Amino acid sequence: MKIDSSSEDSLLRKIAASVRLSSKEAVSKTFLPLGIGDDAAVFRPLPGHETVLTCDWFLESTHFLRDKHPPDSVGWKCLARALSDVAAMGGMARCFLLSLALPATLTGRWLDGFLGGLRRASREFHCILAGGDTTRRDQILINVTVVGEVRKRLVLLRSGARPGDLLYVSGQLGEAEWGLRLLKRGKARANSANPSIRKHLYPEPRLALGQWLAAKRVASAMMDLSDGLSSDLPRLCAASRVGARLEPSRIPCVQIPARFRSAPSVPLQLALHGGDDYELLFTVSPDRARLVPRSFRGIPLTQIGIMTTEKQVVLVDESSRERPLPGRGWDPFRSRR
Amino acid sequence: MKIDSSSEDSLLRKIAASVRLSSKEAVSKTFLPLGIGDDAAVFRPLPGHETVLTCDWFLESTHFLRDKHPPDSVGWKCLARALSDVAAMGGMARCFLLSLALPATLTGRWLDGFLGGLRRASREFHCILAGGDTTRRDQILINVTVVGEVRKRLVLLRSGARPGDLLYVSGQLGEAEWGLRLLKRGKARANSANPSIRKHLYPEPRLALGQWLAAKRVASAMMDLSDGLSSDLPRLCAASRVGARLEPSRIPCVQIPARFRSAPSVPLQLALHGGDDYELLFTVSPDRARLVPRSFRGIPLTQIGIMTTEKQVVLVDESSRERPLPGRGWDPFRSRR
Repeated sequence: MKIDSSSEDSLLRKIAASVRLSSKEAVSKTFLPLGIGDDAAVFRPLPGHETVLTCDWFLESTHFLRDKHPPDSVGWKCLARALSDVAAMGGMARCFLLSLALPATLTGRWLDGFLGGLRRASREFHCILAGGDTTRRDQILINVTVVGEVRKRLVLLRSGARPGDLLYVSGQLGEAEWGLRLLKRGKARANSANPSIRKHLYPEPRLALGQWLAAKRVASAMMDLSDGLSSDLPRLCAASRVGARLEPSRIPCVQIPARFRSAPSVPLQLALHGGDDYELLFTVSPDRARLVPRSFRGIPLTQIGIMTTEKQVVLVDESSRERPLPGRGWDPFRSRR
Repeated sequence: MKIDSSSEDSLLRKIAASVRLSSKEAVSKTFLPLGIGDDAAVFRPLPGHETVLTCDWFLESTHFLRDKHPPDSVGWKCLARALSDVAAMGGMARCFLLSLALPATLTGRWLDGFLGGLRRASREFHCILAGGDTTRRDQILINVTVVGEVRKRLVLLRSGARPGDLLYVSGQLGEAEWGLRLLKRGKARANSANPSIRKHLYPEPRLALGQWLAAKRVASAMMDLSDGLSSDLPRLCAASRVGARLEPSRIPCVQIPARFRSAPSVPLQLALHGGDDYELLFTVSPDRARLVPRSFRGIPLTQIGIMTTEKQVVLVDESSRERPLPGRGWDPFRSRR
């Protein structure tokens, strides 16, 4: 037989060639001596650092729609959302593994679009393809594992918040959820000129911000917002064994044109319960608060509440009335999106 | 709201509690300071070592059948097969990430069985659960990422074979494929007393053998047999830019009772083309061959051929006639199993 004729191998070669290193990234050879093509990849850890490991499902019908999400966005987003977990630890991106299951009919143009988006994200965030697994399947299934690094003793956990710490968020909340609604409403595919649709299709993991907050020891606890503030904040509270008082009037909400606003509270509802924003939620002790700038490289940083001893999350309105925050964010085992 | 009420979180807690460390593995805290429960896991690499990274799909209908494979086997095998890739590099197992998508109806008894098998494999092979991702899905989807370590400059690649090197295999080939046929034939679920069915359901990654071959610098190239000898050997040849002459009479084949043998060649066909054996295929330079024992901890090691300059794989029969080896192993993009 001719050696190496199998089609799974040729698919792997196509992926490897498409997401190969640019000359700028050739330096990565120092930390990735062996990439695609063997039984496993070999990663060379940086002395004095710990390795950050995370994996994420990205599944057709569950996390994206084949007829609404351009393949380029699927490629970008599957990596970007996994990188957001590295950002949430204060880590630097290093490399990733791609597990891809595809219908045989999508190994042409769809795959090219997908690999284009993946390559752009890989280069933008300096995270190189180290390996993966491919198989055939009637629906598109993606799983991405990202490997990052963080200097020893600088990793930022969910569990470090103390009562009295101030609660901050980066960016504007609810934007990706609003983008998704516009996308579902539209007959055609994405108009990525719209900033909310763009944020939904091409989220930007806050890697530089996360690294800065960790390196300067500004934050006491941190996580990323993937399922929505009302789902994620209770997780940070549980890990830190504290509660939180949120001030809705301070929450930076997505801007919605007046003609779309069915009720004045819509932007706040999107900000509280909308998923996929991939912003950072972090706490800062009062004596470090002066170190938090109003914005970091153009991304606003906003104080939205304070941590408490009460082990619950409450919303406090402008007349100081309190009400509990209902959790209505994304949970695959509770409801279909 | 009550903090931490979401059902995805409770599923994660169930998984973490079930596959938690035994007291013996508590030492792992030294290399896994942070496991499940944050945005990512934190792994502390051993000085002087490189990190081995691999991921593997394990999908209902594609890789296993819900009505034929007991959940306990699905849990064991999803980890064991990924560990086999670490064994193939000469690596030691460290930790793994589990991505699991499940129907909500399987989060009870099925999940308990699955976690039981996973826990047994995790303890048997000293590979601890570091994190993962869960979601709901109508079919069972599994992806496992394994992290291993290997001492610097000892990693064993597919690309190190030279013409003249002897080709070896561990164990008996075709056994798992035969076990699968028995399993499909049976009306009831697995009778794991049958050694072939057992090998199909509960494969044993050759970690100790792989580590020994690497540490003693016995092998020049190595890979694991997952898709079958006729698919995998050409990959090793391609990586090393060599060919191979296989002697069928030397290949250690699965033992099949006479009543099942439709043709005398069936055991050889199973050994050449059957998948899922997870044995090691390795090459040894002639001057190191005396170091290869007949068996390693009860697993036979057999020389089955020799590497050549010819860049093709041929079968050589007892009268020295040559014929090319057809590739008919498992390739998801070529044929359905």
